[in-house]
Amino acid sequence: MLIIGNEILSGRTQDKNLAHLATKLNEAGIRLREVRVVPDIEAEIVDAVNALRAKFDYVFTTGGIGPTHDDITTACIAKAFGVAVIRHPDAEAALRAHYAAEINEARLKMAEVPEGATLIPNAISVAPGFRMGNVFTMAGVPRIMQAMLDAIIPHLEGGATVLSANIATDLLEGTIAAGLTEIQNRYMDIDIGSYPTYESAQGYRTTLVLRSPDAERNEAARSEIEALILSLGGLVVAVPAA
Amino acid sequence: MLIIGNEILSGRTQDKNLAHLATKLNEAGIRLREVRVVPDIEAEIVDAVNALRAKFDYVFTTGGIGPTHDDITTACIAKAFGVAVIRHPDAEAALRAHYAAEINEARLKMAEVPEGATLIPNAISVAPGFRMGNVFTMAGVPRIMQAMLDAIIPHLEGGATVLSANIATDLLEGTIAAGLTEIQNRYMDIDIGSYPTYESAQGYRTTLVLRSPDAERNEAARSEIEALILSLGGLVVAVPAA
Repeated sequence: MLIIGNEILSGRTQDKNLAHLATKLNEAGIRLREVRVVPDIEAEIVDAVNALRAKFDYVFTTGGIGPTHDDITTACIAKAFGVAVIRHPDAEAALRAHYAAEINEARLKMAEVPEGATLIPNAISVAPGFRMGNVFTMAGVPRIMQAMLDAIIPHLEGGATVLSANIATDLLEGTIAAGLTEIQNRYMDIDIGSYPTYESAQGYRTTLVLRSPDAERNEAARSEIEALILSLGGLVVAVPAA
Repeated sequence: MLIIGNEILSGRTQDKNLAHLATKLNEAGIRLREVRVVPDIEAEIVDAVNALRAKFDYVFTTGGIGPTHDDITTACIAKAFGVAVIRHPDAEAALRAHYAAEINEARLKMAEVPEGATLIPNAISVAPGFRMGNVFTMAGVPRIMQAMLDAIIPHLEGGATVLSANIATDLLEGTIAAGLTEIQNRYMDIDIGSYPTYESAQGYRTTLVLRSPDAERNEAARSEIEALILSLGGLVVAVPAA
């Protein structure tokens, strides 16, 4: 995933698209492996696009495809692929129909795509995203990004969905670490993560998350961790679904 | 910034450290220029550390320095720098004093640092972060990360603090884009961002954010944008501080 936008790097805007993309990809059996956040600077975007599209099966970008001067993503994707920016006739027709008398050059900029790209429909506000090679370019506004992603997902090739099981305890990480390592070593097919949290109401909690495509294996490892917690005098506490 | 952790990439955990780091760095006159999120995989972490420390003045990592099997950040930083992992005597003494009879090998792992690193104090839970060259390694738990960052900030060399001014309108981006480009072209020293939002209660809003170290220049540009909005028949609407 490539998140494009000064507003994320300045701390002004809290990104909401990463968690949504991760969740939806996981449901489709695709694992999100890296995220980069880069500013609205052409060279930074081009370099990141080229690094990520060479390294991964799919790349998803968010942000920078609106009508204003700081929306430079389309031009950067075209540059990364070494192609021209063209005005897509279908996108232009849709924008002209939608905006009618309010159409102008700035809005028509949203009909531009890299030459060879295919459109990603936008069920919210018409202006499309696009697919260029293995790179999917989406809007940054979360509800538009989500609509575009819904249109993309059926076209992706995924593997088995990774399932997760959770267990939480009042024991500190350092108390369960040795036993947990021993369990992890016997369940190498499961990715077991240990996450400490602190909430003023309940104090420290440790949550263990087990992730693999095999629900039965997850449950077997979860049972062993539960037994470990109880053997160490800990409590197994309620935890929201993974 | 390098965010290390499968839990961010799976969508399970919403990162809260990026926005905090960005805000604090900005106050110190340091601009956050890139963020990467990588999984708990040694080669990925080592490659990212080496890419980022060569490219930027400072690198800040979060996550992966606890006592459990999935905490591999310290080993990865050492590998990136080509040094050994050692147990730091001051960190060990602090952990032994804190945990007393509860000390164990897993907890002593939190005394490990790359050879040559200096400790970053942890006012919350004792186990320290560390600085190795231009790389600052912090915990992932937000309140611990924040305490470590408070200890780091006075040691960083920053430039002028970037100040921001905001203005929001009910006009759509496409309506103001042409006039805004004209203003941006006359205020090249100001980074003007345009951010569309949609809230079900109020519909679409466009927020313009002006960022430069010069408050007077920001205000001059903000006044021009306000005049632009009014000339186009738009409303200037209240907006929270940048």
